[in-house]
Amino acid sequence: MDLVKSEARQFQGMGASAGIAIGQVRITERRRVIVTEYPISADGIPAERFRLRKALDRTKEELAALREQLSETHGPEHLCVIDAHLLLLDDNMLISETTGYIERLGINAEGALKRTMSRFKTFFDAVDDEYLRERGNDIEVVVERVLRTMVGEKQESLDQIEGKAIVVAHELSPADILQIDKEKVVGFVTDLGGKTSHSSILARAFEIPAVVGVERITSEVSDGDTVIIDGATGVVILNPDPEVFREYLQRKQRYEYVERELLKLKDLPAQTLDGHRIRLKGNIEFVEEVSAIHKHGGEGIGLYRTEMLFFNRASYPDEEEQYQAYAAIVQAMAPRPVTIRTLDVGGDKCLTEPGLTDEMNPALGVRAIRLSLRQPKAFKAQLRAILRASALGPVQLFFPMVSGVAEVRQAKALLEEAKAELRGKYPFDEEIQMGIMIEIPSAVVIADLLAAEVDFFSIGTNDLIQYTLAIDRTNEHLSSLYEPLHPAVLRSLKQVVDAAHRAGIEAHICGEMAGDPEYLPFLLGMGFDELSMNPVSIPRVKKILRRCTMAEAKQVADRMVTFATATEADSYLKSEIAARFSESFD
Amino acid sequence: MDLVKSEARQFQGMGASAGIAIGQVRITERRRVIVTEYPISADGIPAERFRLRKALDRTKEELAALREQLSETHGPEHLCVIDAHLLLLDDNMLISETTGYIERLGINAEGALKRTMSRFKTFFDAVDDEYLRERGNDIEVVVERVLRTMVGEKQESLDQIEGKAIVVAHELSPADILQIDKEKVVGFVTDLGGKTSHSSILARAFEIPAVVGVERITSEVSDGDTVIIDGATGVVILNPDPEVFREYLQRKQRYEYVERELLKLKDLPAQTLDGHRIRLKGNIEFVEEVSAIHKHGGEGIGLYRTEMLFFNRASYPDEEEQYQAYAAIVQAMAPRPVTIRTLDVGGDKCLTEPGLTDEMNPALGVRAIRLSLRQPKAFKAQLRAILRASALGPVQLFFPMVSGVAEVRQAKALLEEAKAELRGKYPFDEEIQMGIMIEIPSAVVIADLLAAEVDFFSIGTNDLIQYTLAIDRTNEHLSSLYEPLHPAVLRSLKQVVDAAHRAGIEAHICGEMAGDPEYLPFLLGMGFDELSMNPVSIPRVKKILRRCTMAEAKQVADRMVTFATATEADSYLKSEIAARFSESFD
Repeated sequence: MDLVKSEARQFQGMGASAGIAIGQVRITERRRVIVTEYPISADGIPAERFRLRKALDRTKEELAALREQLSETHGPEHLCVIDAHLLLLDDNMLISETTGYIERLGINAEGALKRTMSRFKTFFDAVDDEYLRERGNDIEVVVERVLRTMVGEKQESLDQIEGKAIVVAHELSPADILQIDKEKVVGFVTDLGGKTSHSSILARAFEIPAVVGVERITSEVSDGDTVIIDGATGVVILNPDPEVFREYLQRKQRYEYVERELLKLKDLPAQTLDGHRIRLKGNIEFVEEVSAIHKHGGEGIGLYRTEMLFFNRASYPDEEEQYQAYAAIVQAMAPRPVTIRTLDVGGDKCLTEPGLTDEMNPALGVRAIRLSLRQPKAFKAQLRAILRASALGPVQLFFPMVSGVAEVRQAKALLEEAKAELRGKYPFDEEIQMGIMIEIPSAVVIADLLAAEVDFFSIGTNDLIQYTLAIDRTNEHLSSLYEPLHPAVLRSLKQVVDAAHRAGIEAHICGEMAGDPEYLPFLLGMGFDELSMNPVSIPRVKKILRRCTMAEAKQVADRMVTFATATEADSYLKSEIAARFSESFD
Repeated sequence: MDLVKSEARQFQGMGASAGIAIGQVRITERRRVIVTEYPISADGIPAERFRLRKALDRTKEELAALREQLSETHGPEHLCVIDAHLLLLDDNMLISETTGYIERLGINAEGALKRTMSRFKTFFDAVDDEYLRERGNDIEVVVERVLRTMVGEKQESLDQIEGKAIVVAHELSPADILQIDKEKVVGFVTDLGGKTSHSSILARAFEIPAVVGVERITSEVSDGDTVIIDGATGVVILNPDPEVFREYLQRKQRYEYVERELLKLKDLPAQTLDGHRIRLKGNIEFVEEVSAIHKHGGEGIGLYRTEMLFFNRASYPDEEEQYQAYAAIVQAMAPRPVTIRTLDVGGDKCLTEPGLTDEMNPALGVRAIRLSLRQPKAFKAQLRAILRASALGPVQLFFPMVSGVAEVRQAKALLEEAKAELRGKYPFDEEIQMGIMIEIPSAVVIADLLAAEVDFFSIGTNDLIQYTLAIDRTNEHLSSLYEPLHPAVLRSLKQVVDAAHRAGIEAHICGEMAGDPEYLPFLLGMGFDELSMNPVSIPRVKKILRRCTMAEAKQVADRMVTFATATEADSYLKSEIAARFSESFD
């Protein structure tokens, strides 16, 4: 019997935060709360309505208390999640739909709430939009809380965990991650979740190994099972055989050894053997991530994404709230520079223009600078907040999703207005550097014209690949066509850096290509001045950089633009380059 | 009183088919069928279920009879619409949902069916996808038919109209348009509909002036009202004042005069004053449109879209069915050539792979050649059908949405397999010319590499603009950013034609830019060898062509690629060029 229970089993999920963790399973929310629907008499309807209302109120109180507690240790961008949940509890549709079920069907409040939830879920699941699906999950999380309150179960909280544990849960909210004590919890695994969810981002920021999307993992494990998770590959091994256990223990030790070795590069300059220097920086979304940049030897923030401040709320944050957030980042990073990108989301993700929420192709829709230029008042509030933060340390700003010269000129005009509005009231950097993302094909084609308008280019390779190849990078059916080494992509990179240098401005990369050590030689050889990446990738990239000469790198770059297909470019890189730097890549 | 009724009023819709029509209003389906929901006793439920089933069967018989009648005069691609409606009547969800309402809510069959319909409608309307919305409309049309059967109203049919009339309807199905007798109906106006709907395409093919999307026009007019419609501008004028009436009568006469004059160019060669010849061809979807190419002096079909054969059906048409359709087109056009494009739709529009129906960004999804390469068996059936048609007249074929060399090589390999499968069984053109659409930015960037693989390029300007600027061309909020004269677009056109000519192959355009007479001089000057357009545009473009010299055209083309913004390029064209050809543009 025991044999069956402790049989070794392996599951495959998505790696959400790199690192290997070994520990004992600690299940939270093993099963959804069990709710029975039963009929009630007509007399009973008012009582059920009252029970619903009371449970909603009680849940609101609990969430408000949690918010209060977290606000002592965490920034406002995290509290937004709880604010969103609080808003949902006041949502008219949720309440009227549920009350409607109670009245029309003559059923108890729990049953009615469950029906409402599954209706919303069906709706959100039908739309294959990761963001909307997360909103569906928000509703589920909130309704589960309310249901627990009704049936009297206690909310579990991760701060009650004892000993070293790997948390296994159906889903963890960002609030859950913020409560994790790294001394007690060494990793987590969830049924749901995606690599780009807020929770996964936080796990990476806090360097907690994590695997998400393992489907039914909660129903496969028991409290106390030994479990190994590999947050890079997404592998989860339950009750490993002794050999497997030893193997992973070694891998864990090796991983931690390599990490420690890499960290020794922290204070060494990012330069080639022949003394050519470039800058390696970090991309971040939260102030909590700044420490990861310091730790890994980043020379500043090459991309600060301001979107998180705008998500999950009924109205935009005002100038003052944004200023506080930007100021915190700039001060934490000073004297190193911070490059702040203005709002880069689609209209579907901001609740200010209802007509924009149903775009057929959001990736080709009203987003980023297009949205900002439609809303000049809100845009100027963001520009003023960024300008004010520029008084506290070196700040640059740049605009996402520029497709042509006219947009840049409009954005510059609004920047000048924002400066004029601040003069005499707040200090700011009058000479603030202003750049644009190059990520739309038209911007590549007219890079020479755009270079005359701005102080620097930063290539967003993720979107550039997506748009150049007309391939939605979140579409699982097209992953084989999403080719960073497609000749059109490589030629585009070259064209942009050449146009920048001819105009005397810098060219940076802030997409995922910047963080791939294998790509470093040709990006260096093409002449890029700055690469900005996930902070943990900086040491790996720096290691290769410090073994290159500029002459070698230029050879590789010249060769890379000669291939007819991505496959040929890839095998050249794999065979020629990886051989040359073999031991550097692990 | 009469004064109020006949007051002049103007409405704005979308011009769906050019031309001015003046006539008396003939309303069909003025109001939706009125349905009352009422409670029934538990005993009555079986009877309601039976009524539902009977009404569904009766409607099926009616539709089958209509199909039979139409099949004598029309091709299979039109009958598909009726087939889709027939399928819906057997749809399990429709039936079980409705039966569920009857049983759970204890209501009559009409009320239950109405509820089902509005649930489906809500779902389809929530997804802002024109195609899916049309499926929602299909359901509505079918359910309305069933409801009419239940409440005993007679189906109206357009062939019962007497005298010259302008039909005003909530919506017209393609089947309705096919029944129109042009002697009786001089135009139509609908509440719903889009410019690219099947019905609008047919209206253009049959040259019936039409305005669609006039919202509530059916509730604003009465039978017998005098109405003027302008199918170019989308203007609808109800009970016009005498001056307005005269003005439109003159415009109508002038329009018809200009059309007649333009048609005189029909047999004159498409060449410049100094004898440079290019080919002007037509884009079509239906065999019925071939006559419009002959009438307007087109030199063949530059783009035959095969999609219509694939829509609205449970399975792909087989080789034989496709062959019949292609053969009909080739024979109707012979001895002029036909260029056939392989399937160019998204997975969401073909019912063969359910997993593809929920893409977040269908424009960046699995579509066109990507879909064909995933389904090599179905793709080869299409290729064999095209090859067999090439025995009946000059045929070329080309592949849509190519992003790189690897895809072309795969497609060519499958073409060779298809040829091998036919050899000895059917005659076909062994040397069939094979080209690709250039519409994805990466294809522009590597046009030189692609030119080595194919016999010709055809630029799809609509999609090229969409992808180059990352702007969904169906998104109303972005229409001001959809700029055909954006410098990146103009440079791309130039780059493609130059790459083609350096490799010794031809470059064509088959997007909307080809049909705009204002653009003719610079497209000619860039060196394009063939322009394919809406057949009715051919004479207008030919008129300008015959007034240009090649030297002039080259000057214009050189100048057009010097501007930094579309606005500058546009004002140059407007001021310099329009002045030179002033009277040619009307």
